[in-house]
Amino acid sequence: MSKIPVGVLGATGMVGQSYIALLTNHPWFEVKYLAASPRSAGRKYRESLVGRWHLRRGYDAALIDEITVEDANDVEAAVAAEKKGGLAFVFSALEMDKDAIQKLEESYAAAGIPVVSNASANRWTLDVPMLIPEVNPGHTDIIPLQQKARGWKKGFIVVKPNCSIQSYMIPVWALLQAGYEVKRMIVNTMQAVSGAGYPGVPSLDLIDNIVPFIGGEEEKSEKEPLKILGAIEGTAIKNAAGPLISAHCNRVPVSDGHTATVSMEFGNKKPSVEQIKEIWKKFRALPQELALPFAPEQPIIVREEANRPQPGKDRDADKGMAVSVGRIRSCPVFDIRFVGLSHNTIRGAAGGGILNAELLKAKGFLG
Amino acid sequence: MSKIPVGVLGATGMVGQSYIALLTNHPWFEVKYLAASPRSAGRKYRESLVGRWHLRRGYDAALIDEITVEDANDVEAAVAAEKKGGLAFVFSALEMDKDAIQKLEESYAAAGIPVVSNASANRWTLDVPMLIPEVNPGHTDIIPLQQKARGWKKGFIVVKPNCSIQSYMIPVWALLQAGYEVKRMIVNTMQAVSGAGYPGVPSLDLIDNIVPFIGGEEEKSEKEPLKILGAIEGTAIKNAAGPLISAHCNRVPVSDGHTATVSMEFGNKKPSVEQIKEIWKKFRALPQELALPFAPEQPIIVREEANRPQPGKDRDADKGMAVSVGRIRSCPVFDIRFVGLSHNTIRGAAGGGILNAELLKAKGFLG
Amino acid sequence: MSKIPVGVLGATGMVGQSYIALLTNHPWFEVKYLAASPRSAGRKYRESLVGRWHLRRGYDAALIDEITVEDANDVEAAVAAEKKGGLAFVFSALEMDKDAIQKLEESYAAAGIPVVSNASANRWTLDVPMLIPEVNPGHTDIIPLQQKARGWKKGFIVVKPNCSIQSYMIPVWALLQAGYEVKRMIVNTMQAVSGAGYPGVPSLDLIDNIVPFIGGEEEKSEKEPLKILGAIEGTAIKNAAGPLISAHCNRVPVSDGHTATVSMEFGNKKPSVEQIKEIWKKFRALPQELALPFAPEQPIIVREEANRPQPGKDRDADKGMAVSVGRIRSCPVFDIRFVGLSHNTIRGAAGGGILNAELLKAKGFLG
Amino acid sequence: MSKIPVGVLGATGMVGQSYIALLTNHPWFEVKYLAASPRSAGRKYRESLVGRWHLRRGYDAALIDEITVEDANDVEAAVAAEKKGGLAFVFSALEMDKDAIQKLEESYAAAGIPVVSNASANRWTLDVPMLIPEVNPGHTDIIPLQQKARGWKKGFIVVKPNCSIQSYMIPVWALLQAGYEVKRMIVNTMQAVSGAGYPGVPSLDLIDNIVPFIGGEEEKSEKEPLKILGAIEGTAIKNAAGPLISAHCNRVPVSDGHTATVSMEFGNKKPSVEQIKEIWKKFRALPQELALPFAPEQPIIVREEANRPQPGKDRDADKGMAVSVGRIRSCPVFDIRFVGLSHNTIRGAAGGGILNAELLKAKGFLG
Repeated sequence: MSKIPVGVLGATGMVGQSYIALLTNHPWFEVKYLAASPRSAGRKYRESLVGRWHLRRGYDAALIDEITVEDANDVEAAVAAEKKGGLAFVFSALEMDKDAIQKLEESYAAAGIPVVSNASANRWTLDVPMLIPEVNPGHTDIIPLQQKARGWKKGFIVVKPNCSIQSYMIPVWALLQAGYEVKRMIVNTMQAVSGAGYPGVPSLDLIDNIVPFIGGEEEKSEKEPLKILGAIEGTAIKNAAGPLISAHCNRVPVSDGHTATVSMEFGNKKPSVEQIKEIWKKFRALPQELALPFAPEQPIIVREEANRPQPGKDRDADKGMAVSVGRIRSCPVFDIRFVGLSHNTIRGAAGGGILNAELLKAKGFLG
Repeated sequence: MSKIPVGVLGATGMVGQSYIALLTNHPWFEVKYLAASPRSAGRKYRESLVGRWHLRRGYDAALIDEITVEDANDVEAAVAAEKKGGLAFVFSALEMDKDAIQKLEESYAAAGIPVVSNASANRWTLDVPMLIPEVNPGHTDIIPLQQKARGWKKGFIVVKPNCSIQSYMIPVWALLQAGYEVKRMIVNTMQAVSGAGYPGVPSLDLIDNIVPFIGGEEEKSEKEPLKILGAIEGTAIKNAAGPLISAHCNRVPVSDGHTATVSMEFGNKKPSVEQIKEIWKKFRALPQELALPFAPEQPIIVREEANRPQPGKDRDADKGMAVSVGRIRSCPVFDIRFVGLSHNTIRGAAGGGILNAELLKAKGFLG
Repeated sequence: MSKIPVGVLGATGMVGQSYIALLTNHPWFEVKYLAASPRSAGRKYRESLVGRWHLRRGYDAALIDEITVEDANDVEAAVAAEKKGGLAFVFSALEMDKDAIQKLEESYAAAGIPVVSNASANRWTLDVPMLIPEVNPGHTDIIPLQQKARGWKKGFIVVKPNCSIQSYMIPVWALLQAGYEVKRMIVNTMQAVSGAGYPGVPSLDLIDNIVPFIGGEEEKSEKEPLKILGAIEGTAIKNAAGPLISAHCNRVPVSDGHTATVSMEFGNKKPSVEQIKEIWKKFRALPQELALPFAPEQPIIVREEANRPQPGKDRDADKGMAVSVGRIRSCPVFDIRFVGLSHNTIRGAAGGGILNAELLKAKGFLG
Repeated sequence: MSKIPVGVLGATGMVGQSYIALLTNHPWFEVKYLAASPRSAGRKYRESLVGRWHLRRGYDAALIDEITVEDANDVEAAVAAEKKGGLAFVFSALEMDKDAIQKLEESYAAAGIPVVSNASANRWTLDVPMLIPEVNPGHTDIIPLQQKARGWKKGFIVVKPNCSIQSYMIPVWALLQAGYEVKRMIVNTMQAVSGAGYPGVPSLDLIDNIVPFIGGEEEKSEKEPLKILGAIEGTAIKNAAGPLISAHCNRVPVSDGHTATVSMEFGNKKPSVEQIKEIWKKFRALPQELALPFAPEQPIIVREEANRPQPGKDRDADKGMAVSVGRIRSCPVFDIRFVGLSHNTIRGAAGGGILNAELLKAKGFLG
């Protein structure tokens, strides 16, 4: 099988670079189309990157470096590539203002190019699914409705949620699915700087310091789970009623890996600590059944050590796609508490986007 | 007035060093007596310290360096110093096992030497008050009962609580005193490494990492507030019934300053965010009335910036004795939430101990 | 004596903030005039700073916050203030491109307002002295020549050298003055991030990393010493012939304090390690004789511990104005080697600028 | 071919853990024997490790966890294993005092078990080769002489040099081999904390700080190259006369990867910067010819970016076995200068030891 040609919008930014790095040797997808700001357009990727590769992992320069970067605003260029068989869909890692991204993603979709987005712009668009493939793969059912309502033929938009919720969202879902209502959660995140992109957080703010605030992050951490757990009603995804979440979001001097401490209150039926461990250890979902290339073998890894998970040691678990949990114990105030951790630029960003695309491909949405 | 001669037990350890540094130019107290492990005993302080001064702040070498360090186990040496007028009471910064500290502190007290302790050994001794002078100065009333029960004449023991609770304990008390019952709290601490002493936490554990676990710290953070808020009944301090606290304690790569995020639930009477700010801004207590030298002018500093308090910028507020709070806002799950911060080796350790001694002096317990 | 009213150009930037912080309670100078980019102009300093105070030390808000910030490009505004007695001279902490700064500083000087500059723009202007008051205070003799050549009456420009050379420049001078020719030096600097201003170096570049490159820094570190050690010839300062310096400049994850390791080769007359220590310990210069307020008591502090100086422990020596040296030992390749350290934003930036102004005041150049 | 069974002495320490991690899936060697301090002896490796696995990379638990750890002092246990075919040679990662290690390694060798050592104890033993396979593979010729002189049959000892010299030793050798005499070098190392083992350097010493001193490290960095470049004369390796090296060794807050800045003086024949780059890019040696499993494809990787190599981005080059160099430029004092970087726990420790063993195997010394 020849690989599906994919594009990356925002290819020179931090998330765009992550896509390019993670798609190296991908069994299904091959990066063939790169677009970025007008400033980079017209130059080879190699040239547009000089001194601006910010990741610690590299990429396959032989395949990528000589691609000429297009202007991301030029949807026609993408259409032309698509017509020549050089582009099947795009990953959107655009870094512009919200309205501009929303419009641009719509333009690509309208032009027949599916958009698998990382941006927050369309997360609250009612007919756009916000996917975590282990949690709400069924939300792809809204895609035909989205296409019909917009008059789009082949194109569509799907998004992924914010990186800050990844460390507790799959664990919450596993408990819900096992029949335990999660009523309320108080969450404290300790987030890595890569979540802020590049240049992101100045060194002066994080040497011998932490910053107990990240603009907009607490709102996302509290509300996005409700859409993910919601249900399609008519042509919209309607939010779930719960769980009710309070999030305290902090920036800490860690490069990659968001850690969250969670206190959780259940409804009437309350699992024991041992039951929770069992549920999490055994949890598997559609990506595992379908054996999607980026799906972790075990979506949730339960650590038994007293002092784990830690971002430095656990972020790369199962190539950065597994969530690690530990310190599962009873909570004096709510029912249980634990520590969750996920890799924010892999599971929480580009890796999550790739898994979304794999799900869409497996379901036949990508031709 | 000539200064009161004081001793430091554990003078070469990290907390002992803090006492010596902070007592430089103290208006009431003067360090005249130093005791440490047998290994250091018999040597000048200067000699016993070579390459082992771990603090970034210095001390008055002219006054301290030539003092000959005594063996902390040798209570008779302290008694002899006391008889010669060279010692009125001791700060205990002993680093030994719990039972040994408990016994040794009792021996000093029995020998007529009051002990103002930093160690955790006697925190749960029923007739030993665990003091935060702004919160429970009245607990010194148990001292005569303690002396009577033990048959001690001049000696007695007081302790201070753990460093991890300082960032929320005074704020909680201010609210209680204003008539608002604090029922439940979920707290997440992000604690500095100096709290672990020296050598403490290995660099390898905190470069590009955090550790979501500190042995014994969560229990202290949850239970010590209950004794502090308790009441003297008979010859014991009886714990208060609340607030119910759940603490998640984490170690972060910060040198000094413990930060806590707090979600708080009130009883029936609920203050608004503005009322809380007012209560905290206006809060003053006995140390401020008595104008104790180490008392901060404002025990609670309310920050209005979106991203404060931060350990790097706020730990030294009012010489490290004030608690800084910020991000006071409503909580979707409980009633309100905020960020608290205090300097763990000043307010939370040696500075807190000195303030205790000042309170005791002002109340006439130190002769 | 009423204080001399001073201005700060670039008052909202990192160095400008340092000036404002360090001038708190200065015995001679009082900040009365603030100027910054047009964006900040017209607003109270307090307003123009919201969320942008980047220093860990604070400033006297009561005196500064209500000053209305002027446009730094508007020299007339400064002249008007000067005429009303509200401005005697300015500290330039301008952050613009080199040519713009050069012209603007000249405009101020031409308008009769002396400029004590922190910027690099005029460092190589032939008739502008680059001052370290302990080293080349005599270079102020060029000021009248500068004024005459330019047709300036009261105004003039002096500059200070780069922060990277402060840790070895005074030690080198002390040796030269003691009669030992320093022929060649190989220097490796490990520089703090505050040297790059704010936002400066991204966290992602310095978490678990160092960067062995700082643009332009090696050239400055090698060449500026030659001008400082030079001599006035005609209306220009002519560079000294040596020492020949090779600098390797690195960025390390330290907030403040530049550390340098130095290997040094002497001419025919070679001092012993003990002689060097004596020379450095005893070194005093004009700022000490004149007892200038910002002059450190001992310009060079010799540390005898095996592992000092360290930025965390020694940068604040004598309020950040002393240079700390240690590990003075023989070098297998050259003659001796040592470690030098100075506070880059105090001695190396605003503090150095203030000391320059104090020298100028003491010499009668500031009215 | 069945794999060669190997042992690790000091298996629970930091370097021992590295050996176990790096030997996962090694094509020639298989860890079958583990020995550590008496405290760990008699327990499964898994049990002796609880909470003490300090590496970020893991190991093949299925193969290792159930091995019962032996007492490293019990040479007989190793002999017994060897007789049963369960041990062919040992990697020594012993952490004891120098004399004890020296004796113990000799005991193993005397008992017929070759020792490939990481310890410094035998580095200056005259008939023990200190190997970097790319530099002095011929020094294995001394092994038969060592065996004869000691009366050993199968056993022998080889060592590897200190981690601090790896970033410049191969580059120096490549230049020497190309006919350019390297006369003098001034080197400044900025070394990772993993070089100090675990617990190693306290966090308090490296948060917002660097330490410009590492005990014993400068001597090793200056002298070990002379033995490596030396020649076998009679039954001893005689040091080379040069290059003359001055090393300044510093500890920086980096987990892995030692960076060195180097100024270098040549003899009469001086290569240009371009020639040096060519020499380094083309350098290949015996490990590459033999295609040893741990040999990097290119021992020296030349980076052309202005700000590379950096430990965070380059330490893992070619699985941590390649040395990265950059910023190759002329030196105002000597002839050229550059930045070198190598992974201190892979190339500089366990990986280097494994490459030594591979060389010995390829040469027939390991049966």
